[in-house]
Amino acid sequence: VELRDLGEFALIERIERLARRAGATRGRAVVLGIGDDAALLRLAAGEDLAVSTDALVEGVHFRWRDEAPASIGRRAMTAALSDLAAMGARPLGVVVALAAPPRLAVARVDGLVRGLAGAARRHRAPLVGGNLTRGERTAITLTALGAVRRGRALRRSAARAGDRILVTGALGGAALARAVRRPSPARPRLEAGRILAGLSGIGACIDVSDGLAADLGHLLRASGVGAEIDAGCIPTPRGFASACARARLDPLRLTLAGGEDYELLFTVRSRGPSEATLRRRLGLAVREIGCITARRGLRGLSRQAGGGGWAHF
Amino acid sequence: VELRDLGEFALIERIERLARRAGATRGRAVVLGIGDDAALLRLAAGEDLAVSTDALVEGVHFRWRDEAPASIGRRAMTAALSDLAAMGARPLGVVVALAAPPRLAVARVDGLVRGLAGAARRHRAPLVGGNLTRGERTAITLTALGAVRRGRALRRSAARAGDRILVTGALGGAALARAVRRPSPARPRLEAGRILAGLSGIGACIDVSDGLAADLGHLLRASGVGAEIDAGCIPTPRGFASACARARLDPLRLTLAGGEDYELLFTVRSRGPSEATLRRRLGLAVREIGCITARRGLRGLSRQAGGGGWAHF
Repeated sequence: VELRDLGEFALIERIERLARRAGATRGRAVVLGIGDDAALLRLAAGEDLAVSTDALVEGVHFRWRDEAPASIGRRAMTAALSDLAAMGARPLGVVVALAAPPRLAVARVDGLVRGLAGAARRHRAPLVGGNLTRGERTAITLTALGAVRRGRALRRSAARAGDRILVTGALGGAALARAVRRPSPARPRLEAGRILAGLSGIGACIDVSDGLAADLGHLLRASGVGAEIDAGCIPTPRGFASACARARLDPLRLTLAGGEDYELLFTVRSRGPSEATLRRRLGLAVREIGCITARRGLRGLSRQAGGGGWAHF
Repeated sequence: VELRDLGEFALIERIERLARRAGATRGRAVVLGIGDDAALLRLAAGEDLAVSTDALVEGVHFRWRDEAPASIGRRAMTAALSDLAAMGARPLGVVVALAAPPRLAVARVDGLVRGLAGAARRHRAPLVGGNLTRGERTAITLTALGAVRRGRALRRSAARAGDRILVTGALGGAALARAVRRPSPARPRLEAGRILAGLSGIGACIDVSDGLAADLGHLLRASGVGAEIDAGCIPTPRGFASACARARLDPLRLTLAGGEDYELLFTVRSRGPSEATLRRRLGLAVREIGCITARRGLRGLSRQAGGGGWAHF
């Protein structure tokens, strides 16, 4: 069965039903969900709205034949919610704009919606509305809505020279999974982001979506500073080096440029909480990988590079 | 010059600069605009967030060779903001997800952004964030964020038997303009929506985006009621009948099924404000076109159809 066999309104109803049955449409903040001209969401007193939009496009970010539809949905939701995590926001809801060709199999949309809905429920980010349109290729655009205490949002621009640079969890795992066609292990660090937003002594924060080097670059530019990174300190998943060797992949390349790990990269003032304190507060592996410098640019110490000296990556 | 000559980050910067210069990035509600993982917007106390997403896809909703790029941008913004108008919400901001092919002319994106930015400024709906990705065809997905007083949002589902049905402005003009390749005269009825949300005696409301028959159908289904419409009462723009005759277009078809007029279609309780009062309060043409019935379905009286009797459209 293809989308054109169903028609627009039947397909919308089908998507709604799937999301509802998955328990992915309701939430404390939802005043009015799917079905009207707009959804209505309620923030608590003293909160600001955080909003971010993100798209996954067929042929660019995914291929139907390479990945289960549910995995595509999950990845889309992870990418969207990770932006809220990076601001320290709690999710209120998500709206989904789907473009799809009339010849697309309904089963693929079903799987996609199951992936979206499963992640929505798991992260308490209900699907509250959407839009459906024809398109030559499938594209999923998610807009994530969150709430953050006024004045407490984490920003890219808040790093200062002397800050330590830390990262949650491990990097490179998503790129490795992609290379060997396994489902991505990534999840949005929503809880960690909210805890960081509540601590004092935290500087800037960004999520690692494009890869450590690129995202640290964004943070540095936004803050008008530079950084020195010790590549040997970058945390990787267990068994990463040997898995990379087996797959003939360069582990440093995956950790620096892999992307889609959705860990949080953040800075801490020199007198801010220690690595051990952060690990305890976040309930999560946290690793110090370098420091912020007044001198602009990103310099990295890479033992693998041979000399062991500081160089531009 | 094509997009691939610029590269992703240069293009993002270019779009930001264009929007900023057009005065389309700042607003009272904007705590943090373009440039971080998420934008931050501030609602007033006692307000709920209204959120709606809408997409314009090349080959489906527009063709580059048929329309000025700025007009496409304007239409996208009008569609997005009209959903806020239909809820009675005031705009807080808009996020833009753009998918575009690498071979697209930069001048087209410039024009598109000018159209978006002009409408954003005019309607005080600042552009606060976005996403840029490759795609085979251009697609513009806008998510509009608004605020509405708690409990005062207009809904599709609030119509009751006995309500009068009214419409703002005139219908059919956008379809006529499209047919003769003129720019659409449509604008989102934001002010009218906000005034309606503040009045008592108002029932349901929806914006006319797909055409009167389709959108009234949505409202009736959501409310579990039916309606009788006098097609002879449907307001049309000045000179509409003769322009349709010249272009050999069926005027009734344009008014009922044309779409993209973005007028507000709403119901008023039998003891609610009169047509004259509404006209004065909204500062706008308002026309009563029929009434809500307990009997489901949409019945229309069409003089042009000949018999003058009630029939299903």
